[in-house]
Amino acid sequence: MGVRIDGLQYANWSEKIFRQMREGGVGAVHVTITYHETFRETVLNIEAWNRWFEAYPDLIVQARTAADVRRARDSGRTAIVFGSQNPSCMEDDIGLVEVLHTLGLRFMQLTYNNQSLLAAGCYEEEDSGLTRMGREVVDEMNRVGLVIDMSHSGERSTLEAIERSSRPIAITHANPAEWHPALRNKSDTVLKALGETGGMLGLSLYPHHLKGGGDCTLQEFCDMAARTADLMGPERVGIGSDLCQDQPDSVVHWMRTGRWTKAMDYGEGSADQPGFPPMPDWFSDSRDFSGIERGLREAGLGETEVAGIMGENWLRFFEAGFGPTQVAE
Amino acid sequence: MGVRIDGLQYANWSEKIFRQMREGGVGAVHVTITYHETFRETVLNIEAWNRWFEAYPDLIVQARTAADVRRARDSGRTAIVFGSQNPSCMEDDIGLVEVLHTLGLRFMQLTYNNQSLLAAGCYEEEDSGLTRMGREVVDEMNRVGLVIDMSHSGERSTLEAIERSSRPIAITHANPAEWHPALRNKSDTVLKALGETGGMLGLSLYPHHLKGGGDCTLQEFCDMAARTADLMGPERVGIGSDLCQDQPDSVVHWMRTGRWTKAMDYGEGSADQPGFPPMPDWFSDSRDFSGIERGLREAGLGETEVAGIMGENWLRFFEAGFGPTQVAE
Repeated sequence: MGVRIDGLQYANWSEKIFRQMREGGVGAVHVTITYHETFRETVLNIEAWNRWFEAYPDLIVQARTAADVRRARDSGRTAIVFGSQNPSCMEDDIGLVEVLHTLGLRFMQLTYNNQSLLAAGCYEEEDSGLTRMGREVVDEMNRVGLVIDMSHSGERSTLEAIERSSRPIAITHANPAEWHPALRNKSDTVLKALGETGGMLGLSLYPHHLKGGGDCTLQEFCDMAARTADLMGPERVGIGSDLCQDQPDSVVHWMRTGRWTKAMDYGEGSADQPGFPPMPDWFSDSRDFSGIERGLREAGLGETEVAGIMGENWLRFFEAGFGPTQVAE
Repeated sequence: MGVRIDGLQYANWSEKIFRQMREGGVGAVHVTITYHETFRETVLNIEAWNRWFEAYPDLIVQARTAADVRRARDSGRTAIVFGSQNPSCMEDDIGLVEVLHTLGLRFMQLTYNNQSLLAAGCYEEEDSGLTRMGREVVDEMNRVGLVIDMSHSGERSTLEAIERSSRPIAITHANPAEWHPALRNKSDTVLKALGETGGMLGLSLYPHHLKGGGDCTLQEFCDMAARTADLMGPERVGIGSDLCQDQPDSVVHWMRTGRWTKAMDYGEGSADQPGFPPMPDWFSDSRDFSGIERGLREAGLGETEVAGIMGENWLRFFEAGFGPTQVAE
């Protein structure tokens, strides 16, 4: 029996949501714990997670390794894997890469839409590629086993991260731009380079990443998944729902503007649609994973491919990616 | 073959010192990583340690458990256990107790000479005992497996910590006040209560804690050790050398005054002797542990008692103290 894994969620966490993960048979979720927060603020978010782990030990448990995910499955709990969508949490201090890894961080985006100290985001007009510090941080993330996530990065930066990294990287939540040409979706050039280097793409269910937005049908989504599996290899694709369940619109405002501007920035939205967009009716929460699994079958994918996309691919990726580089003794 | 453990050092760490630990057959050292530093500053100190672990993997390795100490011994390295001499590192945030434990902290003093948010230090005229927050923090330290260290605390605070704590506590570096009545040394009342609850005393080699200071002889020290083993039980005593090797006097000034005063405070020293006092000639660095082992035998202790005091007692204490409270499943 495979394990279902969601490659990205950022919900307004609650007992209800944790119970829905169990009802949906979701074995592991990569959760965003921080966007623009400093290191100390990120630690406060970890403290909040520690209280959830203490409050709901029958529902959730922190995972630092693939083995932790398997143990969570065997004990009927959902494994929680920490990630950051921006490198703000490491400030300008490369030593924090190892410290954050020790605290359980397993994914970190090098950029979130904007230029960071490390690379350029997908909303910048000019893509710097990896910066001097960016190259050093990629090496350090490789050393400790903190996965590089380029979901919100620019094309050149992403290709340079794939090239520089000695270990496979991830795009945890995005779709092919060929299918839906959003700034956040990825070119076939990026997706092929990602797949050829053993990287992973988590297919996003965030409406701005879907053709037709919230009106995208399950069949359209699953047909796109099948084509992406053809392009990248069926072992290189998973789900990264980008589910922002129960979040107030103030949160999408924080995600988009952090503290980098005093002005309004609508990101993927617009003045007409400034808040979180409505989700497709076939995916509102973690209980809807069964529907996607059925849809993938109906799109013509075989059982192994479906199990891979639903979670086994992420699990293998966790296995290879989360520990320190193996050094010959 | 037993393992030699030093229950406290705060040296000006260097390859030379790490090599001397190996030459002295020291299997584990509880090292002070922070005094008055904030959380973020403490993390910088951990980052410095991470660089030492990376630079000297053949000499030292971080230990989080007694099993790590045994593995270090089997691979011919010295296990490094992190500790704090003051709760400044947890600021006023009980959530940092678990975070610091995750980062490897295994001992934390509730006070360093002065009143803290948690308890009173041994230099305060008024001993508050455990504060409201102090009682909460003791419970939280118990829960996660962070050992309460009362080396620099007042008598009432120490007795209340022993009483409140559901797990044995430690006085990692001090001697009996009956032998040498320094403010930092401990009454028989405290030592008996500590021993009866399974706690540990690390005997100090810091000259201000020794009868006769730096002129104290090895035989006097070892005779005191034998009497303390009689008082507390031979399994309740270890070494906590308080070795501050190669430190400039600016460091003892930081230890004494931190940021709590703008005036000079000589602590255990005096205007005549403001710096670190000269060590006894039979204990200058980690290579001198063999001499203490011989001295303990000559003081009439049996082989089991000697092996216990030299390290096996600390190792058993680590085994019981460093993990989370066992919860029935």
